[in-house]
Amino acid sequence: MKTIGVLTSGGDAPGMNAAIRAVVRTGIDKGIKVMGIQRGYNGLLNGEIFEMNRTSVSDIIQRGGTILRTARSDEFKTVEGRKKAYNVLKVFGIEGLIVIGGDGSFTGAQKLSDEFDVKTIGIPGTIDNDLAYTDYTIGFDTALNTVLDAINKLRDTSTSHERVSIVEVMGRRCGDIALFTGLAGGAEYIIIPEREYNFDNLCRTIIEGKVRGKVHNLILLAEGVGGAEDMAKKIEEVTGIQTRATVLGHIQRGGSPTAFDRILASRLGARAVELLVEGKSKRVVGIKDNKVIDVDITEALNMKKESNDNLYDLAQILSY
Amino acid sequence: MKTIGVLTSGGDAPGMNAAIRAVVRTGIDKGIKVMGIQRGYNGLLNGEIFEMNRTSVSDIIQRGGTILRTARSDEFKTVEGRKKAYNVLKVFGIEGLIVIGGDGSFTGAQKLSDEFDVKTIGIPGTIDNDLAYTDYTIGFDTALNTVLDAINKLRDTSTSHERVSIVEVMGRRCGDIALFTGLAGGAEYIIIPEREYNFDNLCRTIIEGKVRGKVHNLILLAEGVGGAEDMAKKIEEVTGIQTRATVLGHIQRGGSPTAFDRILASRLGARAVELLVEGKSKRVVGIKDNKVIDVDITEALNMKKESNDNLYDLAQILSY
Amino acid sequence: MKTIGVLTSGGDAPGMNAAIRAVVRTGIDKGIKVMGIQRGYNGLLNGEIFEMNRTSVSDIIQRGGTILRTARSDEFKTVEGRKKAYNVLKVFGIEGLIVIGGDGSFTGAQKLSDEFDVKTIGIPGTIDNDLAYTDYTIGFDTALNTVLDAINKLRDTSTSHERVSIVEVMGRRCGDIALFTGLAGGAEYIIIPEREYNFDNLCRTIIEGKVRGKVHNLILLAEGVGGAEDMAKKIEEVTGIQTRATVLGHIQRGGSPTAFDRILASRLGARAVELLVEGKSKRVVGIKDNKVIDVDITEALNMKKESNDNLYDLAQILSY
Amino acid sequence: MKTIGVLTSGGDAPGMNAAIRAVVRTGIDKGIKVMGIQRGYNGLLNGEIFEMNRTSVSDIIQRGGTILRTARSDEFKTVEGRKKAYNVLKVFGIEGLIVIGGDGSFTGAQKLSDEFDVKTIGIPGTIDNDLAYTDYTIGFDTALNTVLDAINKLRDTSTSHERVSIVEVMGRRCGDIALFTGLAGGAEYIIIPEREYNFDNLCRTIIEGKVRGKVHNLILLAEGVGGAEDMAKKIEEVTGIQTRATVLGHIQRGGSPTAFDRILASRLGARAVELLVEGKSKRVVGIKDNKVIDVDITEALNMKKESNDNLYDLAQILSY
Repeated sequence: MKTIGVLTSGGDAPGMNAAIRAVVRTGIDKGIKVMGIQRGYNGLLNGEIFEMNRTSVSDIIQRGGTILRTARSDEFKTVEGRKKAYNVLKVFGIEGLIVIGGDGSFTGAQKLSDEFDVKTIGIPGTIDNDLAYTDYTIGFDTALNTVLDAINKLRDTSTSHERVSIVEVMGRRCGDIALFTGLAGGAEYIIIPEREYNFDNLCRTIIEGKVRGKVHNLILLAEGVGGAEDMAKKIEEVTGIQTRATVLGHIQRGGSPTAFDRILASRLGARAVELLVEGKSKRVVGIKDNKVIDVDITEALNMKKESNDNLYDLAQILSY
Repeated sequence: MKTIGVLTSGGDAPGMNAAIRAVVRTGIDKGIKVMGIQRGYNGLLNGEIFEMNRTSVSDIIQRGGTILRTARSDEFKTVEGRKKAYNVLKVFGIEGLIVIGGDGSFTGAQKLSDEFDVKTIGIPGTIDNDLAYTDYTIGFDTALNTVLDAINKLRDTSTSHERVSIVEVMGRRCGDIALFTGLAGGAEYIIIPEREYNFDNLCRTIIEGKVRGKVHNLILLAEGVGGAEDMAKKIEEVTGIQTRATVLGHIQRGGSPTAFDRILASRLGARAVELLVEGKSKRVVGIKDNKVIDVDITEALNMKKESNDNLYDLAQILSY
Repeated sequence: MKTIGVLTSGGDAPGMNAAIRAVVRTGIDKGIKVMGIQRGYNGLLNGEIFEMNRTSVSDIIQRGGTILRTARSDEFKTVEGRKKAYNVLKVFGIEGLIVIGGDGSFTGAQKLSDEFDVKTIGIPGTIDNDLAYTDYTIGFDTALNTVLDAINKLRDTSTSHERVSIVEVMGRRCGDIALFTGLAGGAEYIIIPEREYNFDNLCRTIIEGKVRGKVHNLILLAEGVGGAEDMAKKIEEVTGIQTRATVLGHIQRGGSPTAFDRILASRLGARAVELLVEGKSKRVVGIKDNKVIDVDITEALNMKKESNDNLYDLAQILSY
Repeated sequence: MKTIGVLTSGGDAPGMNAAIRAVVRTGIDKGIKVMGIQRGYNGLLNGEIFEMNRTSVSDIIQRGGTILRTARSDEFKTVEGRKKAYNVLKVFGIEGLIVIGGDGSFTGAQKLSDEFDVKTIGIPGTIDNDLAYTDYTIGFDTALNTVLDAINKLRDTSTSHERVSIVEVMGRRCGDIALFTGLAGGAEYIIIPEREYNFDNLCRTIIEGKVRGKVHNLILLAEGVGGAEDMAKKIEEVTGIQTRATVLGHIQRGGSPTAFDRILASRLGARAVELLVEGKSKRVVGIKDNKVIDVDITEALNMKKESNDNLYDLAQILSY
């Protein structure tokens, strides 16, 4: 393995830069040439490729976003697109490709390795924590703290007005952001795709809380369930308590990564390079039981994420 | 003046607690009894009134929201309501009333003083900075920094995706939050109620920026103009560049107040008590040319806020 | 088990309040009376004990410090002291005691259980992460992010002046704060009690970095090695590059706990109560391989913390 | 005026980058060539000069420190040094020089203009707020908020341990950082060079506070008085209350500038260029009574800063 490439793909996540830095510096430490590919698979198809050195990744470990940029590519989803990508990689002498992104990005890597002679390794970079094979994805911890910061601010105003606050956070299929921030933020109610919820029960909780003297109620709602504005109106109708919805949106993707995400990204980035050096391919790296692991990419994509029932139940007991 | 009351009314703002603290401690320092009135004019009508001492306001200078809570009151908007409020004040021996809030709250104080024998002083507590007689209102500076923090996070993800970001911030009649954060955040475009804007010109700016190599475009939009989502769609249509809207919402009202807001609130709170001691009534306190001032409440409400053309023009020159 | 007590002891740590909240609400959920003991073992001896209900722990999950206060007690270190403590517990009907603190606090619990008929469970609350039986202690993650925030600010000024910055962080026997923030902060050098370091080598790294164009150098130094000021002078002498030392001090103990610490504290607090309910005693709870565990207290205190050689080596490769 | 230069000198301050950006973009907007001079007067002597365009200052408004770097220069303090600097300026065609810094930097500009045919304008960039002619210097507001953030963290741990906290902040001759943060942070005592303080009185305040039930005491101490560690020991001796000193150090110079500092810097940077265009020289820009002003540099340097007795007295009344 003389030359490897690295790209970021799909939605960006805080800590992607720390992962890029780890890939580049570990690669160079092992005598490998590292090529940065800009704008994901799209940039790969366009040949937006340049050699990176130690200085290319100076002063980025603390930066949100990705210096390699990211983009979606419809062309790469076709066999013809991937054939072209393979040719570009060959022209640049890139034997191994490290892809930082979520499951869509991993599927791309999987197909590229299946169809052509390219070694690929995936690093899980997404705030959603929706990959079953790893306990945590890069960016998740930062997103949690960003949401908690927003909740803190909403609590001020919600308490002053004695309102109910509904906070809709990211997570289409996976409610982990809502669940973890609901537990950590002391939310009265958490609504996630993995669990049924009962609107009457929700309203009863709010009314009972008011009777007991609660001055604000916080509801965490995952994007995958959605409908924050409508829910606010219905709650206000039923309970008679002012209710406001806040959809946090893209601020959840930004911000300087936390210690946790920077360290996770550094470890996974380094491990991805090691795997390529060991001649491995079609693996994704992750963290399981506090240890760095690697898993076959197809196996990883087929795993079904278990829902965190323990945390959900704990949140219910503690919020009451 | 033996006994005074203090209440917060309307939307809450960071720094209201610092103002309450200043009122209470200055009052006690001058040998006056200070009564806290909860939930604005509504609580006044309900007799939610309690004596405050130095300890009642311990450890609140750094807290967002208002420990006195706030609420709207339709009853107080009627003469009968105000008559009732006057009676409650008399029963509690409250001779002077300090009202912390925006123009709606000031109008209430004005009428109460006009119709009954109650001395009133207003303190400007609102994040909107929409009161013409004062350079700054309490909470404005904190809101600016909250918005800048959100912009910083959006910049990360917006840059990674090379998108246009539209950020809609609070301010119905007054675009100051959008204007000041647009200037301070390096926005490419600022859209406020005080100034016409031209959609074609906006799109041209974005396209020209792209040609010059700009990797993200930030548009600050005041609530008073509104329509962030629609605007995003139209910009994407015209420019072909991905555009995302974020409506920041109520997080703008929360957060620990900045140094500026805490000091402003402390100065204005203390001055409000002094005015009552001097026998003044129907005055509002503020800051003009870096000096604490007080103005007749009717005069203050009739002033028309001038638009900050200098800052708007400066923002345009610097953003280009 | 009808009545349990909870106290915080030793140095405070962010997340202690989240742990108290979890103990109280889990206890009440299980039909147990929960008594709060103020000021650690000292308050126990003084009978500073009061019943806690759900509302006692409202709105504290996001607060740093400990609402139960903490203090050191010399008296409790004597058998007579512990005898007295036992009597106080009996008088208040407290059958099980949950102690939130570090190894000194755990030793107190251990002795109390050995000598008298009191069931004890320990929860690891300390920013130092110096307990071998658990992967993480409550407060550690928050301290890491506090240090990273300080490093970010120092980087600004250090880069502007092209200086070397030495940052001394907490950790007497255990260098984990220095190690983790060194890795996450991109430090050029990390000096911890667990590893030898070579001053000449350090200076050579700095000089080589300058030659390669590095504009700032960051050295993370654990309190257990210490001597930041002297080291700064010596480095300046040898390298000719301006060097400044910053001893971060007690700000590392404060701040709103991170998501990680709040969730860890919630899980461990709930588990501690369960253990008492199960009739267990002399156990400490922790997290190992991402799972909540409990360990015999004596065993836990005798374990020797392994040094994190992997992370240290990784930091060296990535910082170069 | 066809070509101007800009440099930053002395200690760095948050907002310097915003000022540089305003100088560059305003200059270009007026058809002027703007040269960036690196490392202050030192870099000027070395000819470290390069042309800046709009893109040179992209994405810096939110960054702490100074992209132009800063350094001290002994050589420039001599007439020979300034003669050399003049020659370098001539070679590069620089007719007007904008100097961003404190009084030392202004003195350099003053002498350069006195001795040679160079037009100079000063912009006040220093966190100390120690320039008499302007109400605020660039960086002061950010430093205040950085200190308040540290105070918040110390309050957590100080309250938990019921300690006295002494916080030593920057400010050699001018106690404004200590005064403003003392007022805004609710400090029990503020010690600044401008005012005598009485140690016995300080201890009495602490003891009385304890009797009244205060759980923590915060003392703000300006660097110009200094001696935090010794003071802590003496207070502990006299009052019997644990006392801890924290010297905040260089983190006060860093961090992303606040809205206030970015706007101030933008306005002053633009005005400095306008003055050069108007043919002015030996002026310093500032803000007085909320208006941008400019003052003769010699006059400015000779003004004596008045002490803020109002704020000091207010802090005393409110802290009690």
